[in-house]
Amino acid sequence: MPHTIAIDCMGGDHGPSVTVPAALSFLRDHPQARVIFVGQEALIRPLLASADALSGRYRIQHASEVVAMDESPAMALKSKKDSSMRVAANLVKAGDASACVSAGNTGALMAISRFVLKMLPGIDRPAICSVLPTVSGHVYMLDLGANVDCEAEHLLQFGIMGAMLAAALEHRERPRVGLLNIGSEDIKGNKVVKDAAELLQNSGLNFIGNVEGDGVYKGHADVVVCDGFVGNVALKISEGIAQMLGQFLKQEFGRTLLTRLAALAALKVLRNFKGRVDPRAYNGASLLGLKGICVKSHGSADIFAFGQAIDRAYEAASNNVPERIAVKLAELQREQEQQGGEPHTTEEKV
Amino acid sequence: MPHTIAIDCMGGDHGPSVTVPAALSFLRDHPQARVIFVGQEALIRPLLASADALSGRYRIQHASEVVAMDESPAMALKSKKDSSMRVAANLVKAGDASACVSAGNTGALMAISRFVLKMLPGIDRPAICSVLPTVSGHVYMLDLGANVDCEAEHLLQFGIMGAMLAAALEHRERPRVGLLNIGSEDIKGNKVVKDAAELLQNSGLNFIGNVEGDGVYKGHADVVVCDGFVGNVALKISEGIAQMLGQFLKQEFGRTLLTRLAALAALKVLRNFKGRVDPRAYNGASLLGLKGICVKSHGSADIFAFGQAIDRAYEAASNNVPERIAVKLAELQREQEQQGGEPHTTEEKV
Repeated sequence: MPHTIAIDCMGGDHGPSVTVPAALSFLRDHPQARVIFVGQEALIRPLLASADALSGRYRIQHASEVVAMDESPAMALKSKKDSSMRVAANLVKAGDASACVSAGNTGALMAISRFVLKMLPGIDRPAICSVLPTVSGHVYMLDLGANVDCEAEHLLQFGIMGAMLAAALEHRERPRVGLLNIGSEDIKGNKVVKDAAELLQNSGLNFIGNVEGDGVYKGHADVVVCDGFVGNVALKISEGIAQMLGQFLKQEFGRTLLTRLAALAALKVLRNFKGRVDPRAYNGASLLGLKGICVKSHGSADIFAFGQAIDRAYEAASNNVPERIAVKLAELQREQEQQGGEPHTTEEKV
Repeated sequence: MPHTIAIDCMGGDHGPSVTVPAALSFLRDHPQARVIFVGQEALIRPLLASADALSGRYRIQHASEVVAMDESPAMALKSKKDSSMRVAANLVKAGDASACVSAGNTGALMAISRFVLKMLPGIDRPAICSVLPTVSGHVYMLDLGANVDCEAEHLLQFGIMGAMLAAALEHRERPRVGLLNIGSEDIKGNKVVKDAAELLQNSGLNFIGNVEGDGVYKGHADVVVCDGFVGNVALKISEGIAQMLGQFLKQEFGRTLLTRLAALAALKVLRNFKGRVDPRAYNGASLLGLKGICVKSHGSADIFAFGQAIDRAYEAASNNVPERIAVKLAELQREQEQQGGEPHTTEEKV
C-alpha cells in the first residue's frame, strides 16, 4: 500500500539541507511512497530543483513557524500553531499522511504529537522506543526518557507497545520481552520492577523475565522494558563508552609513524567495524502509544541518518503499528474485566 | 604506616590459586605491608612454599568454612560463623587488619561486613563504589547495586562517601561531584533526583550539578552519584557494549587472510588499546559507609585483577577513608542541627 510521510523539514541542527535530500533519497528507494515536505517553502523549493523525476510523488505544505531546539514544549505547543512540527502532525491527524518524522526538539514533539494525535485508550504519555545493535541482531528498548516516574502498569504498557512494534517491524510472531533489572532472579530489583514482572507474566506476551544491563547487548531479549530514567541513562552511557573506546582506538593508531602505517593496513577492517556500529544506522526513535505514527530523529542527524528515521516511519505505517498496539491493549483490558473467567492460555496470543 | 590486609582466600571463582599469588605479589610491591591469609590452611600453605623471603610479613588465619557464590546472604551470615569472609571481617573489627578483601558472594559480603564492622552513624547500608575509566582519567561511581530504592538523603550520603574516597585516593582537595540525570538542566529527572540536587547543593561538597550518561565517560565529574538500580544497570550496560564492540572488532580482523595480516600489523596497537580499557585494571569496589575498609573483587578476577583490589584496600587504609567519611558526616549533621545559625560558606569545606 502506498504511504505518505510528512517530513518536518525545519527540525534538527541542519534543517532542510539534511531533511529534504534524505526524503528525496527515500522516494527513490521506495517507488510506492509519497512525501509531504512541511516547512518554509522558500527554503525547501530550491532543494527540489533536481528532483523533477520524483515531482509526482511529493508536495510542499508551507508552515510559517519553526520550533527552536531549546524552546519549552509548552511554549511550542501554545504559541506556534503554524510550526512545521505541528503542521506535520496535523497532516497525520487529518489522514493526509500515514506518519510524520521530525529531528526537532524532543519535548516539543512529544507535547505536540500527544495534543494533536491523542493517546491510545489507556496510555498516558508516549514512550520513546529505539532499536539498538546486539551481538546477534538488534533489540527494541523503551522507554528512553519520556517517562521518568513509572509505575508497574506503565512498564506493562511499554512491554505491549514494544512487542507490537517489534512484531510488526521484525515480522516476528512473539518477540521475547525482557524487563531490565539488576539480576536475573525474581527477587532482584525495586518494588516497581517486581510488580511489573508479575503484570508482564500475566500479559500474554512472550515475557522471558529479567534482563541485566549486559544482557541487552548480548541479545537476551528482542524487547527490553525499563522506566524512562533508567533507559535514558543506559542509552547515553552506551553512547559515552562507545565514543570513548573509539577515541582510544584512534589515539592508539595515531601514536607513531609505525602505528599510523598499521592503521593504513587495517583501514578496511576499521571501516567495516565502524560501519557495523554506526549509530546513524540506528537513528529514528518511535513515539509509541499515540493514535498515529511519529518518529523522532536525532537532532544532529545527517542525510543518511535522517533517511533511516524516514524508513522506520514508513515501515511502521506499512505494518499498522498503532492499530496493533490498540488491539492488544483492548484485548488485555477485556481480560482484566473478565477476571476469574476462562483460564489464561498465553500460547495463543502474540 | 605499615598496614595489614586480611585476604579472604577462599572467595571468588578460583579461590586460593588466585588470591594467594596476588597477595604475595602485593607484598613484594609494598615492602611495608603485611597480609593475613584467611581460609583453609591446608589449601593455602602449599601455595606459600616459594615465598620464604616474605614469611615475616604474612600469617595464615585458619577458617574452616567457605561462603558459596550462590549462597543466600542471610544463611551465610547466620550459619557460617567460621567462614573465611566472616573471619576476615572479624580481623578488621578487632584491629588486627586495616582492611579486608574478598572476591566472594557480594550479598553475603555486604551482610557480613555490615553485621561485623557496623555502619557509620547516619548510614543505613553500604554503598558499592567503583572506579571507571574516562577520556581524561577516571571517575568514582556509586551506588552500583547495594541500594535499589533510594531517597534523596541516600544520594546525598553517596555524594559524601564518594567524595571522601576520591579525595583520599586521588589526593584531590575538592573532587567534582555530579548527580546522574537525564538532562543537564535542573528541571530534569524524577523527584528523588531533584530533591537530591538540592541537598547536594547545600552539602559543602564541590557539587557540579547533573551529569548525563555520556558525561560519565567524558569525565564531566570525579564522582558520579546515582541510586543502586540505575548504577548497576549503567555498569553492566557498559560491560555489555564494551564486550560487543570488542567482539565485533575481533570478528572484522578475523574475517579473511588479508584482514588477519592487518591484525598482525596492528597487533601492538590493538594490545595497547586493550590494555587501556582492561576492566581488570579497575577491579575492586569499595563498600563504603562501614566503620572499616572492605573491598569487593569481581568473582572471576585473575591474579592481576585481584591484586588491583588488594591495592585499593591498601590505599584506602593508608588514607583513612572511613575516618574521613565519618568526619564529614558528623560535620553535616552538626550543620543541620544548627539550622538558622552561621551562613553557609561552602568554599572552606571539602
